[in-house]
Amino acid sequence: MIHRILIKQAELNQQKVDILIEKNLISQIGKDLVAEDAEVIDAKGMAVIPGLVNGHTHAAMTLFRGFADDMKLMPWLEQKIWPNEAKMTREDVYWGAKLACLEMIKSGTTTFLDMYQKFRGTADAVEEMGIRGYLSAVCFDRFDPALTEKGKKECEKLYSVVDEYGSRIQYALGPHAIYTVSGELLQWIHSFANDHRCLIHLHLAETEEEVNNSIRQFGFSPVRYLYKLGVLSPRLVIAHGVYVDKDEIRMLSDYGVKVIHNPASNMKLASGICFQFAEMKEAGVKVGLGTDGCSSSNNLDMIEAMKQAALLGKAWRKDPEVLTASEMLEAATCTGADILGLKAGRIEAGYLADLCLIDLQSPAFTPNFNFVSNLVYAANGSCVDTVICNGKVLMRHKQVPGEAEILEQAARCAYNLVKR
Amino acid sequence: MIHRILIKQAELNQQKVDILIEKNLISQIGKDLVAEDAEVIDAKGMAVIPGLVNGHTHAAMTLFRGFADDMKLMPWLEQKIWPNEAKMTREDVYWGAKLACLEMIKSGTTTFLDMYQKFRGTADAVEEMGIRGYLSAVCFDRFDPALTEKGKKECEKLYSVVDEYGSRIQYALGPHAIYTVSGELLQWIHSFANDHRCLIHLHLAETEEEVNNSIRQFGFSPVRYLYKLGVLSPRLVIAHGVYVDKDEIRMLSDYGVKVIHNPASNMKLASGICFQFAEMKEAGVKVGLGTDGCSSSNNLDMIEAMKQAALLGKAWRKDPEVLTASEMLEAATCTGADILGLKAGRIEAGYLADLCLIDLQSPAFTPNFNFVSNLVYAANGSCVDTVICNGKVLMRHKQVPGEAEILEQAARCAYNLVKR
Repeated sequence: MIHRILIKQAELNQQKVDILIEKNLISQIGKDLVAEDAEVIDAKGMAVIPGLVNGHTHAAMTLFRGFADDMKLMPWLEQKIWPNEAKMTREDVYWGAKLACLEMIKSGTTTFLDMYQKFRGTADAVEEMGIRGYLSAVCFDRFDPALTEKGKKECEKLYSVVDEYGSRIQYALGPHAIYTVSGELLQWIHSFANDHRCLIHLHLAETEEEVNNSIRQFGFSPVRYLYKLGVLSPRLVIAHGVYVDKDEIRMLSDYGVKVIHNPASNMKLASGICFQFAEMKEAGVKVGLGTDGCSSSNNLDMIEAMKQAALLGKAWRKDPEVLTASEMLEAATCTGADILGLKAGRIEAGYLADLCLIDLQSPAFTPNFNFVSNLVYAANGSCVDTVICNGKVLMRHKQVPGEAEILEQAARCAYNLVKR
Repeated sequence: MIHRILIKQAELNQQKVDILIEKNLISQIGKDLVAEDAEVIDAKGMAVIPGLVNGHTHAAMTLFRGFADDMKLMPWLEQKIWPNEAKMTREDVYWGAKLACLEMIKSGTTTFLDMYQKFRGTADAVEEMGIRGYLSAVCFDRFDPALTEKGKKECEKLYSVVDEYGSRIQYALGPHAIYTVSGELLQWIHSFANDHRCLIHLHLAETEEEVNNSIRQFGFSPVRYLYKLGVLSPRLVIAHGVYVDKDEIRMLSDYGVKVIHNPASNMKLASGICFQFAEMKEAGVKVGLGTDGCSSSNNLDMIEAMKQAALLGKAWRKDPEVLTASEMLEAATCTGADILGLKAGRIEAGYLADLCLIDLQSPAFTPNFNFVSNLVYAANGSCVDTVICNGKVLMRHKQVPGEAEILEQAARCAYNLVKR
């Protein structure tokens, strides 16, 4: 028998609709739908939105939440993050990623693009928690030829490891950044991605320092350097892209490169405020949103990320009309899904059943003149009542099964890790 | 018999403490306190913080939440806000303010400084909801001598109206701004405030346009203009203060003027990002935080305001070390209380019993290496479990009595208002 879920009376575009889910797809949207043997979800007083897509994070870094803040980037990395990351076991990564998945589900995220070490730790967590993960193991060679070869082998190995997992888990190649990965390895990754139809997940143009170093080391700014290497492609997803000029935006567009904007991380680390959302969109570059890891921006709340992106963009532009609430919701849903090549992010028949029900019985949605404005500007992740991913209910009435154990185990791993 | 509350086992500065409240004051903090006949609150798994102080809002404007966003200031005011404000009744203001109080309680705010019309509507709401309101009716004469006299009479009248209410409600004079209130009325308000020991709540130096107009109209930038009028004083609380120069900061300090920073509003309306938190603090100016009204920044969540202020400040400065989490918590608690002349904002014996218990059983507080970092950077208003104001429990387990009715009545008023 086909597994069916019937959502009754959810608000969608100011109308009340029923939504029928069959297997992992939205099969029908309409009034007064009937489906025998379906699991019925009463959505009265709730609105339905597509599950949110977090386009850039490092899930297991939730273990470092609050461990070191209000510091400059290099002392933060060298004194706090790297020495502790070096000690992490697969179990640490597993519980860190479980905590991240829990937090994402509770705040309405159904898909994320990750980059982290100990790949299987994250993959196991995602498999169990029921959301979608595009997982890239972080890859770098620090311009050492021996490590270049090791990096290639690692990518090949992980590509086949993913076969052990279900369809919700996809492998993405994860070259860390142009200052940690050689041109040779970037080119090899580019070919591998083409041959095996994988995404490539790369930090790029995050800080002014990175741009200056790129010009000094390679003779070109970051996007131009990638162009010279011949690795710009529709498979490339760059995180940040804060510092790019007009011609570089044109190159990103010409080669179909995607960009993920991480407003909270860029602000908290003081990386930069000049993200060119409007210019990129105008040039036809797909721009999604991300939170970055919890050690830099401290939570994984994509509803907050939408607000941060809008507020930062308006403030920097000195124009309250730009980066509207509905553009932000689009970036965090359908554009995010498009970037990952996922038929999701829309409430339409034939799309993946990745949905959230939003509880409207709260001050943030009162009055409810404009649901999208309330969602983006007034609410936060706590408004999410129910989450469905791939046709399965992951959260009901704000409760995720196993919550207490995940909090306990993740905390235990975090405290032990920094003590070791 | 004295009303007593005994909070057991709350986390405070990484220790577990009991807190005894007698009448409206914190009377004792220690281990294993015993108090017969006290109402006992089990705070295991919770941290205690002072109730938050929202230093600038327009409570009843929650009725306009989401009604008009992503617009430039003048069309937004002229086409959307002013025509509807003109139609508001005392009942509208009452339910709008009830909704605001509900939202503030739910997100941990126990005191706010307000500015709005139909004073009694707001005062009635605050009286019933149990929080503290420093309420200023908005006052302006648009440089029309007839309205100047009317304004003075109105201030005198409202000053005595406040006597009808309890001690939680204080009157503050509310001259709207220097572009809507004449110098004569500002000077009269200054004298009246001195004579009657009231605060003065004024929008000032919010936008570049305001500064340019001030120089054109009065020959001086806003703070210098107030200096020339002789109205700078410790009773003056200015909202915004985005555009002030070094000498003006010195003037604010010399005269003991207080400033409220409203980061979300400044960003969303694109007013400006250059708020000089560090310079003001260094000069000895007390700086608090506010949300502004819900029609401009859409919610009243002071935990979010702390994060916004920190992130905006770091980004604008290009320095991740400035505006730390603990500075933000200080601004939103003890400094906010100091600004209003309230012996609150600290968990100490003898201080007013205005407290919140924060639920630590959530991803935002896992791991909990640093509670203040988690509160400011990872959490949001939904982490507040219990709120006590003036020694009375206003919220327990995230439930405020009468919530559903407030949501319903406020929504009804809002929809009717814009239809009229």
